[in-house]
Amino acid sequence: MSDKKYTTIHYQSYLQLDKLLDAQSLRSLEVEGKTAHDEMLFIIIHQVYELWFKQIIHELDSVVGRFHTDRVDERNVGVAVARLKRVIEIQKLIIDQIRILETMTPLDFLEFRNYLFPASGFQSYQFRVLETMLGLKDEKRLTYNNKPYESAFDEKLKKKLIDIKEGHSLFDLVENWLERTPFLQFEGFDFIEHYKGAVHTMIEKEQAMIKKSQFLSDEEKQMRLKMLGNTDTFYEIITSEEAHEKMKADGQVRLSYRATIAALLINLYRDEPILHQPYQLLTCLIEMDELLTTWRYRHAQMVLRMLGKKIGTGGSSGYDYLHATAVKHHIFTDFHNIATLLIPRSDLPELPEQVKQSLGFFYKGN
Amino acid sequence: MSDKKYTTIHYQSYLQLDKLLDAQSLRSLEVEGKTAHDEMLFIIIHQVYELWFKQIIHELDSVVGRFHTDRVDERNVGVAVARLKRVIEIQKLIIDQIRILETMTPLDFLEFRNYLFPASGFQSYQFRVLETMLGLKDEKRLTYNNKPYESAFDEKLKKKLIDIKEGHSLFDLVENWLERTPFLQFEGFDFIEHYKGAVHTMIEKEQAMIKKSQFLSDEEKQMRLKMLGNTDTFYEIITSEEAHEKMKADGQVRLSYRATIAALLINLYRDEPILHQPYQLLTCLIEMDELLTTWRYRHAQMVLRMLGKKIGTGGSSGYDYLHATAVKHHIFTDFHNIATLLIPRSDLPELPEQVKQSLGFFYKGN
Amino acid sequence: MSDKKYTTIHYQSYLQLDKLLDAQSLRSLEVEGKTAHDEMLFIIIHQVYELWFKQIIHELDSVVGRFHTDRVDERNVGVAVARLKRVIEIQKLIIDQIRILETMTPLDFLEFRNYLFPASGFQSYQFRVLETMLGLKDEKRLTYNNKPYESAFDEKLKKKLIDIKEGHSLFDLVENWLERTPFLQFEGFDFIEHYKGAVHTMIEKEQAMIKKSQFLSDEEKQMRLKMLGNTDTFYEIITSEEAHEKMKADGQVRLSYRATIAALLINLYRDEPILHQPYQLLTCLIEMDELLTTWRYRHAQMVLRMLGKKIGTGGSSGYDYLHATAVKHHIFTDFHNIATLLIPRSDLPELPEQVKQSLGFFYKGN
Amino acid sequence: MSDKKYTTIHYQSYLQLDKLLDAQSLRSLEVEGKTAHDEMLFIIIHQVYELWFKQIIHELDSVVGRFHTDRVDERNVGVAVARLKRVIEIQKLIIDQIRILETMTPLDFLEFRNYLFPASGFQSYQFRVLETMLGLKDEKRLTYNNKPYESAFDEKLKKKLIDIKEGHSLFDLVENWLERTPFLQFEGFDFIEHYKGAVHTMIEKEQAMIKKSQFLSDEEKQMRLKMLGNTDTFYEIITSEEAHEKMKADGQVRLSYRATIAALLINLYRDEPILHQPYQLLTCLIEMDELLTTWRYRHAQMVLRMLGKKIGTGGSSGYDYLHATAVKHHIFTDFHNIATLLIPRSDLPELPEQVKQSLGFFYKGN
Repeated sequence: MSDKKYTTIHYQSYLQLDKLLDAQSLRSLEVEGKTAHDEMLFIIIHQVYELWFKQIIHELDSVVGRFHTDRVDERNVGVAVARLKRVIEIQKLIIDQIRILETMTPLDFLEFRNYLFPASGFQSYQFRVLETMLGLKDEKRLTYNNKPYESAFDEKLKKKLIDIKEGHSLFDLVENWLERTPFLQFEGFDFIEHYKGAVHTMIEKEQAMIKKSQFLSDEEKQMRLKMLGNTDTFYEIITSEEAHEKMKADGQVRLSYRATIAALLINLYRDEPILHQPYQLLTCLIEMDELLTTWRYRHAQMVLRMLGKKIGTGGSSGYDYLHATAVKHHIFTDFHNIATLLIPRSDLPELPEQVKQSLGFFYKGN
Repeated sequence: MSDKKYTTIHYQSYLQLDKLLDAQSLRSLEVEGKTAHDEMLFIIIHQVYELWFKQIIHELDSVVGRFHTDRVDERNVGVAVARLKRVIEIQKLIIDQIRILETMTPLDFLEFRNYLFPASGFQSYQFRVLETMLGLKDEKRLTYNNKPYESAFDEKLKKKLIDIKEGHSLFDLVENWLERTPFLQFEGFDFIEHYKGAVHTMIEKEQAMIKKSQFLSDEEKQMRLKMLGNTDTFYEIITSEEAHEKMKADGQVRLSYRATIAALLINLYRDEPILHQPYQLLTCLIEMDELLTTWRYRHAQMVLRMLGKKIGTGGSSGYDYLHATAVKHHIFTDFHNIATLLIPRSDLPELPEQVKQSLGFFYKGN
Repeated sequence: MSDKKYTTIHYQSYLQLDKLLDAQSLRSLEVEGKTAHDEMLFIIIHQVYELWFKQIIHELDSVVGRFHTDRVDERNVGVAVARLKRVIEIQKLIIDQIRILETMTPLDFLEFRNYLFPASGFQSYQFRVLETMLGLKDEKRLTYNNKPYESAFDEKLKKKLIDIKEGHSLFDLVENWLERTPFLQFEGFDFIEHYKGAVHTMIEKEQAMIKKSQFLSDEEKQMRLKMLGNTDTFYEIITSEEAHEKMKADGQVRLSYRATIAALLINLYRDEPILHQPYQLLTCLIEMDELLTTWRYRHAQMVLRMLGKKIGTGGSSGYDYLHATAVKHHIFTDFHNIATLLIPRSDLPELPEQVKQSLGFFYKGN
Repeated sequence: MSDKKYTTIHYQSYLQLDKLLDAQSLRSLEVEGKTAHDEMLFIIIHQVYELWFKQIIHELDSVVGRFHTDRVDERNVGVAVARLKRVIEIQKLIIDQIRILETMTPLDFLEFRNYLFPASGFQSYQFRVLETMLGLKDEKRLTYNNKPYESAFDEKLKKKLIDIKEGHSLFDLVENWLERTPFLQFEGFDFIEHYKGAVHTMIEKEQAMIKKSQFLSDEEKQMRLKMLGNTDTFYEIITSEEAHEKMKADGQVRLSYRATIAALLINLYRDEPILHQPYQLLTCLIEMDELLTTWRYRHAQMVLRMLGKKIGTGGSSGYDYLHATAVKHHIFTDFHNIATLLIPRSDLPELPEQVKQSLGFFYKGN
């Protein structure tokens, strides 16, 4: 094997440019015998999207592989964060890329739009894989054109997609990993009890202060109390497992109670060295979700600009469908909602010294 | 006056940096005697927003001024386009700027959030001015916290805002300018009649071809016909003044019939040199609208990340309110919808030679 | 021909995804039997670059085609501007794209770098085409690794490249088009004479004012006079054809005297409607040049980060070579330098009314 | 103190908008009695820059404070990384911001340029502070206009700047912190000796393989050996303290030998959890340096576009001066150059198990 390392390779063949640069055949030319100038852009930009999707799937695949175990090595959390950050950079780029497509005007699009029927971005297999790997569930999906989205694919691809669905999504694996967090209870420190106590104390103290403040009008006091919230509102989801399970049954929440507590702990004590990478990981999930939504949203805008109220080549309602997916197809909402549960550091219970040491680094010999 | 030109000036005094860099006083320091590190970012980023709003208003003001006349010099259309393109660049920047605010984590925000009550971005006077100058109508606005948005301002600002509302918005002035377009009917060429004829011919021909195609299944034929549309659907708004007026009365449309026709003509014949700048102008309106919406949208996302389901310092529902404005506070929708009415260049009636010459440039002596 | 229009097409086959997504084969796998995770990114990002290069060439090709004539229709200037603006958007994106490659750390690159020898970006045929089409001359190129850059290609590509070099570059065609500008002298208005007079008057007046100013110190007066310049310095290139030709012979200037005058006129009177698109065209050239340089520059930075002082896989000095191209491989410098020749609008001679009318739009019947 | 928390505040007063939005007074208006439209942009964009500089200084200040100690708590490394990442986001934004200034054309700038004399960005006090805090040394600075850069400031600011110079720069503090890295030698593991051995072995093995390869021509073998390097070239700086000191004396290197070794160790073993944040920190330094250079570079380009070869209002040579600072004013070059010293993971000596455990996390009770 090893001597192959000392063969040579040329840029053109390494990148398979003969194949790659010969993969653009314009329907306008084929159908009308005359090139619609902007069709080249239309093909190339979608090919670029598909290349990036392949790259994102490559990264997600490796992250999923590293989390698919009972004991995730801390080294792997670091690697996962680095790779998800790469996904995030790619997502930013493909959002900006929409600006290039917007240099194609509606009138220029009309020169070849008719020849595309019924092709549509909804037939992108890789995009479905990507959504599924992240954790989008079929029951959360909008139907498209009154058909299940798999109907766009042939039997072979349909089957591959089913396998992916039956495997583990990033959502599931992160949930499992969170549930295994070893810090929830240790050495006599019960995190969730301490947290509940802190919330309770904070709310009582603040309510009293607000009520007796000489600077606030009655109306302002009401607003301020509402902004403060209480254990029957924001905090309920975490302070009672029962309430959490009810919300889960109603579909308001997806993440398990134990994983939610772990995510909260990581957010609150994320300054501790040992929680730094876990915190980064949760932040990456939020950011990927946000960027995926932004991409859907910008995509919808672009379609509106291109078609107005016309119907998409694949038969969808165009803008309305895409905009609805931007609103509905969120995956990591529960991680966004952890923000609801945060309280100021000054109201947090101080960690016992021995817990703190376990969370910090510990050099042998120190 | 003139000799002043030969005085000198220093960078520090020209930019009034003594004032500018002394305008950040942290509430955390004032209230608690201890700086919350991230409050500085919070203040500075909002100050930067306000400086950019001032710049945008400066540009809009000059554009409005140039259109507020019975006869807009073509030179002014060029200037307006250049200035609106600057506004667009600023909008892109202030959207990206949200990424900086997102480096502040929810926990860091909590260190000073309580001291901000009841301040809120909803109290930005300049932002209201900007929306109003573009043409956002009071009746289209969501109420905020069950109060009219002006309630955030003192009497002086309220009065100024009313003056701006009673003046001309960019929407109104562009509408007036479009209505005055001299090309709708000239020298025996009636644009709208030609357009209707072309749409009619195109639809009939396409319908026949689709129906008899040997390559399409029945289901595909149905989809394809739906995608084609007909004069009772997409095109109705323009082919019948009556239909247009009805939609206007229902609030589905805001732009007048005549202005809509002019905007359509500009879009269809935008390759003609004389229509180039007018086309750019309409494109700028669409782009500003799109970017303003994207900004609202990203703003809403950022608030979700910061607060989860908590309530805003000003008492709003936070994310839900902001997201609703992103969906509802569009201004130039009618210009987006022109795309609905476009037909392929090959189906467009050729312009009579003398009309074409009038739309091209004409050099004396050529 | 026409009935083909009513066939159907699927997204996967339209984009030739079978081919496209099968064009990534990792050398690390082939050589070592083990995937280097980041090699996938390395391949895909370069493939994306090549796709964008294809798109840029597609646009340049169409622009060159439209300028390759004795009489450029004004409509074509508009189309050229729109397409070059698209090129500019693509350039912005591929600069930002470097951020994605920077998520690959030097250590990760080392996992497969050895297998790439002697492949190198210098072997990108399309990039050479792109540079050549814009107008980069062989004699301006740095040699790479002591060999002419064509040595990277096989005979067939070498030949194609020679044909492109012998054809017309965008630089040449724009130069020709500028030389044909009809406005340099007309109806008794000799632009360059008026301009020289205005420069002369402005300089004399300013010099007198500066010298007698009571607000300036002697040192400040000297600085201010230097900043003002005089006809022996900045303005010389344009005020004397002889001086221009000398600079051209020395290689300081590339653009012909007549084309330079035309570019100056377009810059000074760009508010006139008829000059608006020509001005946009010149601005696009400056912007493309600036972005190409920025790309080279960022590319050099990225290589520095990846390799430090190591040598490139193709044998170049890596950073130093790339940085040198960023400094030297400019194409449209002469258009940047027009800025040197501009004088304030208030010092410009007013155009005679009939000239002004010819430069504005002129509607028959007005 | 505490009851102040229950006072109220308005957005306008919190942000001191009365002051902020009243700090733009146009010289064109003052001198000529007539507004030059684009001067507003010129003022506002520079004010925005100064606000961001204030924010960057705020962050650097806090990072410097946390490193100015004999024992940096690991928690502080995490905080430093987060704050430097914020600085990086700001840097990206202020680079993009140049696009807004580029919407001002040279002709528009000329309408007020004369009134600015001799103000200039070189008079920005905060920018000098920022450079100095990062670690730019006076002796590395280009003189500007033949004067030391402090001559731009009054006595008070000059004095403040001297104090900052005499304090600790980020460069110095990071160097000190690196020198204290506890992992260079421990428990019988001497990092640098192991590293030297690994480099030696790798080079010998590779040289032998290259020389005997049947696939490479003689010329290719030469290139490949050059690319490989040897201990007399790239690696010399680290394998011999003497060589390092010589290079330091010559000004080729700034970082101390011991700190260089520590930086190398962090780069090579950055997958170990305990080195993760230190690695991030070093990456931040490289990125800030890169972005500062990019900013200088884009700034130079923008000046070229605006002025061509004209001289700056402050008397500098404009483009040439700025471009030279982009080439010369690097600060963290030594950290870029660590890349030169990296070798593939597969050639790295495996860490002894007990060392590895010390570098990973260690939970009490595990």
